[in-house]
Amino acid sequence: MIIILKNGTPAEEITRISQELSETWKVTVEKSIGTHKVVLGLIGDTTSIDKLQIQEYSPWIEQVLRVQQPFKRVSREFRHGEASEVVVPTPNGDVYFGEHHPIVVVAGPCSVENEAMIVETAKRVKAAGAKFLRGGAYKPRTSPYAFQGYGESALDLLAAAREATGLGIVTELMDAADLSAVARTADIIQIGARNMHNFSLLKKVGAQDKPVLLKRGMSATIDEWLMAAEYILASGNPNVILCERGIRTFDGKYARNTLDLSVLPVLRSLTHLPIMIDPSHGTGRSEYVPSMAIAAIAAGTDSLMIEVHPNPAKALSDGPQSLTPDKFDRLVQEMSIIGKVVDRWSTPTFDSINDNRILFAPELSK
Amino acid sequence: MIIILKNGTPAEEITRISQELSETWKVTVEKSIGTHKVVLGLIGDTTSIDKLQIQEYSPWIEQVLRVQQPFKRVSREFRHGEASEVVVPTPNGDVYFGEHHPIVVVAGPCSVENEAMIVETAKRVKAAGAKFLRGGAYKPRTSPYAFQGYGESALDLLAAAREATGLGIVTELMDAADLSAVARTADIIQIGARNMHNFSLLKKVGAQDKPVLLKRGMSATIDEWLMAAEYILASGNPNVILCERGIRTFDGKYARNTLDLSVLPVLRSLTHLPIMIDPSHGTGRSEYVPSMAIAAIAAGTDSLMIEVHPNPAKALSDGPQSLTPDKFDRLVQEMSIIGKVVDRWSTPTFDSINDNRILFAPELSK
Amino acid sequence: MIIILKNGTPAEEITRISQELSETWKVTVEKSIGTHKVVLGLIGDTTSIDKLQIQEYSPWIEQVLRVQQPFKRVSREFRHGEASEVVVPTPNGDVYFGEHHPIVVVAGPCSVENEAMIVETAKRVKAAGAKFLRGGAYKPRTSPYAFQGYGESALDLLAAAREATGLGIVTELMDAADLSAVARTADIIQIGARNMHNFSLLKKVGAQDKPVLLKRGMSATIDEWLMAAEYILASGNPNVILCERGIRTFDGKYARNTLDLSVLPVLRSLTHLPIMIDPSHGTGRSEYVPSMAIAAIAAGTDSLMIEVHPNPAKALSDGPQSLTPDKFDRLVQEMSIIGKVVDRWSTPTFDSINDNRILFAPELSK
Amino acid sequence: MIIILKNGTPAEEITRISQELSETWKVTVEKSIGTHKVVLGLIGDTTSIDKLQIQEYSPWIEQVLRVQQPFKRVSREFRHGEASEVVVPTPNGDVYFGEHHPIVVVAGPCSVENEAMIVETAKRVKAAGAKFLRGGAYKPRTSPYAFQGYGESALDLLAAAREATGLGIVTELMDAADLSAVARTADIIQIGARNMHNFSLLKKVGAQDKPVLLKRGMSATIDEWLMAAEYILASGNPNVILCERGIRTFDGKYARNTLDLSVLPVLRSLTHLPIMIDPSHGTGRSEYVPSMAIAAIAAGTDSLMIEVHPNPAKALSDGPQSLTPDKFDRLVQEMSIIGKVVDRWSTPTFDSINDNRILFAPELSK
Repeated sequence: MIIILKNGTPAEEITRISQELSETWKVTVEKSIGTHKVVLGLIGDTTSIDKLQIQEYSPWIEQVLRVQQPFKRVSREFRHGEASEVVVPTPNGDVYFGEHHPIVVVAGPCSVENEAMIVETAKRVKAAGAKFLRGGAYKPRTSPYAFQGYGESALDLLAAAREATGLGIVTELMDAADLSAVARTADIIQIGARNMHNFSLLKKVGAQDKPVLLKRGMSATIDEWLMAAEYILASGNPNVILCERGIRTFDGKYARNTLDLSVLPVLRSLTHLPIMIDPSHGTGRSEYVPSMAIAAIAAGTDSLMIEVHPNPAKALSDGPQSLTPDKFDRLVQEMSIIGKVVDRWSTPTFDSINDNRILFAPELSK
Repeated sequence: MIIILKNGTPAEEITRISQELSETWKVTVEKSIGTHKVVLGLIGDTTSIDKLQIQEYSPWIEQVLRVQQPFKRVSREFRHGEASEVVVPTPNGDVYFGEHHPIVVVAGPCSVENEAMIVETAKRVKAAGAKFLRGGAYKPRTSPYAFQGYGESALDLLAAAREATGLGIVTELMDAADLSAVARTADIIQIGARNMHNFSLLKKVGAQDKPVLLKRGMSATIDEWLMAAEYILASGNPNVILCERGIRTFDGKYARNTLDLSVLPVLRSLTHLPIMIDPSHGTGRSEYVPSMAIAAIAAGTDSLMIEVHPNPAKALSDGPQSLTPDKFDRLVQEMSIIGKVVDRWSTPTFDSINDNRILFAPELSK
Repeated sequence: MIIILKNGTPAEEITRISQELSETWKVTVEKSIGTHKVVLGLIGDTTSIDKLQIQEYSPWIEQVLRVQQPFKRVSREFRHGEASEVVVPTPNGDVYFGEHHPIVVVAGPCSVENEAMIVETAKRVKAAGAKFLRGGAYKPRTSPYAFQGYGESALDLLAAAREATGLGIVTELMDAADLSAVARTADIIQIGARNMHNFSLLKKVGAQDKPVLLKRGMSATIDEWLMAAEYILASGNPNVILCERGIRTFDGKYARNTLDLSVLPVLRSLTHLPIMIDPSHGTGRSEYVPSMAIAAIAAGTDSLMIEVHPNPAKALSDGPQSLTPDKFDRLVQEMSIIGKVVDRWSTPTFDSINDNRILFAPELSK
Repeated sequence: MIIILKNGTPAEEITRISQELSETWKVTVEKSIGTHKVVLGLIGDTTSIDKLQIQEYSPWIEQVLRVQQPFKRVSREFRHGEASEVVVPTPNGDVYFGEHHPIVVVAGPCSVENEAMIVETAKRVKAAGAKFLRGGAYKPRTSPYAFQGYGESALDLLAAAREATGLGIVTELMDAADLSAVARTADIIQIGARNMHNFSLLKKVGAQDKPVLLKRGMSATIDEWLMAAEYILASGNPNVILCERGIRTFDGKYARNTLDLSVLPVLRSLTHLPIMIDPSHGTGRSEYVPSMAIAAIAAGTDSLMIEVHPNPAKALSDGPQSLTPDKFDRLVQEMSIIGKVVDRWSTPTFDSINDNRILFAPELSK
């Protein structure tokens, strides 16, 4: 933090400000004296200091400027520039999330509706190449009258799907009271966009062992999102995956949210954490999902979350943004082509790739 | 909900769509046949139906339009156009929030720091005319390293201030685990902007008796905010006060948020619930608070929440947006002048009003 | 501008950076050396320097921070803290805009439709207390198929209304080719929100004499808006009035824009220019106009622009946000009450004010 | 447009509303009578009707809903679902923009600085595979004190670069007074983001023959952007290319704008016009450009605009977002790999592609 003093600040005022700062905030104050200006540099942990507050220390203060990033443990510097990897054990073996690993695909319905649909969907997405099944047991819904998820019984159905396929399970936690039940079933615990600022919940998932998928709040800045992750790391859990799912802007007529793919290069330079993109929530319309999924791979994502539902028209939530299993099959095939080009795809997902060109738009948009 | 069918939709398709809709969603489907178009009207509870999902019922569907508001219990129609009032018992007597009552002033520091400061502040804001003391025991902070509030011990200090002054207490609940402790001390439980979408918490404060102050999420639409209130009412608690605290826009350089005073006429037409304005968080800078507080009164607010701290430069949180008790005194005096003009002020708050003109800008901005 | 160098920057590199900066940008570079950091301060005109660009001068540069505001002539400091006033000659005498003058009311229809309507409206708004008639001859419309204004013939009708009433005329200029025609009729030339970033047009109205009403762009930051005004002042015309007309946010369902009244205290501290509020465009709905107009007065506006149309349902543009002349009469009566309280109202506008309380909401919302 | 009448609307009122609507707006009003509701459908050109205005026709009107898109000539339906192509003659031959053609690369500096730099840059970007040189002669700058472009003399330098390389020229028009000069040099006339709502300028470029590159306004909705294009087509010029360049959101700390790649699938479904992506302005930082450029290709763009400057640190404008020619070479090589995969790349741009994997992040970010 840098404090610029006005021309002519008396020496004793400089001393007073310096002393008060170092006492109150436990920082070292370094003075740089030039011909026209005196600049005070605060060395130490300034993350909790509000610059507007410093302004009030003295009428001689001209400006206060923040130099450091507010986050630490999530920063790339914290790991000396190295990416971290999040390893998630699943019945089918360990899955690695991170920039030196193949892209991990998470797929499944918005909410768990019954055993047949969730097991069937799990089998289909596994066959297509997904490593994790997503499915909501607890659903954050804008309306109290909308379907709220089947709760704990849906967790049992996810467990059944896990057993049937060996896929890892990703499911959302909304209420700390459900943490042990969710953690029993989930291989990755999801914190949804609406709870990104629920700091109590962040601390609790930070104090347990399961990896956490942290969705970006719908109007969270990059800094706020990283600080939410910092809450989890500071509470002891280093296994966090950041998931972009579209932000709120002035235009929601066609795409429900604005998928911010530029987070990929931005986050890559700021943090060591793995990054996931969710083009389904990110656009809100299944016909926009394929091109955004492929773009995310080209832009360097570590993982993708895609909604798949056996019958989107009858889905209890978010049908319009869900792909059918058939469309998902075709999309993964397209994804694999780009994935190989960027050297982030593991094994052939289908036997039948005879063509190395992508012609996705016409077919997948239908 | 209105469904417009394309020209030439076969009669059997109209029948099929109508039957499927009425079975799946338990609504009555009314058919209106014109020369060029067939329009289906869905009569009944359509609040949980997603219009994009209906679109997928048939390729013959041209468009689906929503007619009804998604909220019910909070709507002005629900009370046949009448405003509701929220009555809050305090040691000093019942305080009424609502459009037919005098403006209620809530004041105090962002967070409770120690007994001396909170009791002293309580005395000062009471003397100026406030009916409630605000003060945070649990603080939602962007950084895990910033002061998080003194928690339960701060609740005891609030209780002491309540006893010393008779003021009602408004304090924030962030974690359902603290509900009983908070409800023991608070006369009004605050749900902060960051938890407006924390539906689990909304259900829990809806299932208890204390009135709830529901702050608008930082990028919540009016509809989403009212739906969050609907969660509380639907859970059984009708005593909700809506508090605007500034929204997030593209410009945060000077004012930290954009205080949206137009919610006053908008909400008045949509809901029966009382409305509060928080110009302190709404602008983030104490020098902008007086003009916005007075504007809020002129625009018809039912209540104001204003941050007051005995020494803003040393405040543990949000110092830059806090008024000193002296500035607060002067502001309330100005407020009372406008409050009387709009016939929403109860009793003279100061003995010494000799002048009926407001000259607020120069003095208060210093 | 402040440049912070990394620990251990070699002395010759500091010299090289300093020399290159002072040569390229014609600034004096002042060096402040502390124990851990070296800070370079750039003294001189740094308004055209991009801080990201400076960053590229050397890998030893840790951070570049901007200290100064980018604007000069519009800044309050430029006039040593004094407000400016804009004096506009009209047939009825000079009208003064500025914080030491009574509030100036500008009223009239969105667009000029025919002589009868514009003259009649002019008479009505004059009788109610307006000093200026607004009316569009050239209309910026989203659709090329919507009514675009009657152009030059509408200017003649405005001239007729001016002659009939003595009111000053405010009308919008969209195309520099129309400048002489518009300047012939208009007493104040309006630059609309959509042209706030049309720098060619700004330069041209800056190079002529008529006062300019500069509306805020729909997503312009305060800095960008002031820089647009700076274009006009830098071109030689000091008579600029800033008009807030609502900004674009994430929610446009009820109010078409979000009227940002906090610009009043913000601009007051930054600039000497007079400020106008337009609650008609600012909300887009006539029923929200009265409370926002009154709030603007309470918050300290210097002027108000309000749309009035003899028959809003038949208006060729913006009918939904226009008041009828009768509603405008009542609104000005309410405004005068608050205006007197804040000591910003000139003379009684109506003979018949028998009541000093405002009861605006019920009557005016109908 | 659909009008829903309240229960119990008298028959004569229905007749009155219908007649008035058909007379005022020249539409056919079709009545659909159901058991509970009467619905009026307006058949004909309703693009200029404001739904709020219709609401005022009668207190019996419950709701007015818009069915049709506001745009016509730019809509995909207007060409029966077929994409259009924009053919631009250049010294090197015709270049085709459109979804059935190879991706067209436009590259060059933000502004033209001198002959050596522009000719040299033109040669470099041509060698790398670009078909057009971009370069600003007139620059829209936030500050009147910032470099405004060299104007007409810069146009001559662009002409020299055109002659030296055969590349087509893309340059911005800010002022209608410069139209003939710009049209003489430019093969494509650019309308910048700040002038997207400058309807006078849109009409003028619509009334001449050169193709127009229409950048999206910084907070323009998709509908507003398409309506701006509609202005050009309605004025007679069908050759419009839409260019996304990043929108304004709540977070500009890292990326200056938010590049909205979802416009690719959205626009593809709405319009027949070709689409260009500008990742340089879209992110504002050269290190984010490569991943966004490649993502744009994967998502289906028809064209890319990329800023290239021989010495970004010394650029007179927008240096921080410019690539060096060397980095541009490497980027085009990466782009060609993805371009071939999506079958949208014309010929090998380099002789030396020995590797078909993209490893862009590490090298290009440096």
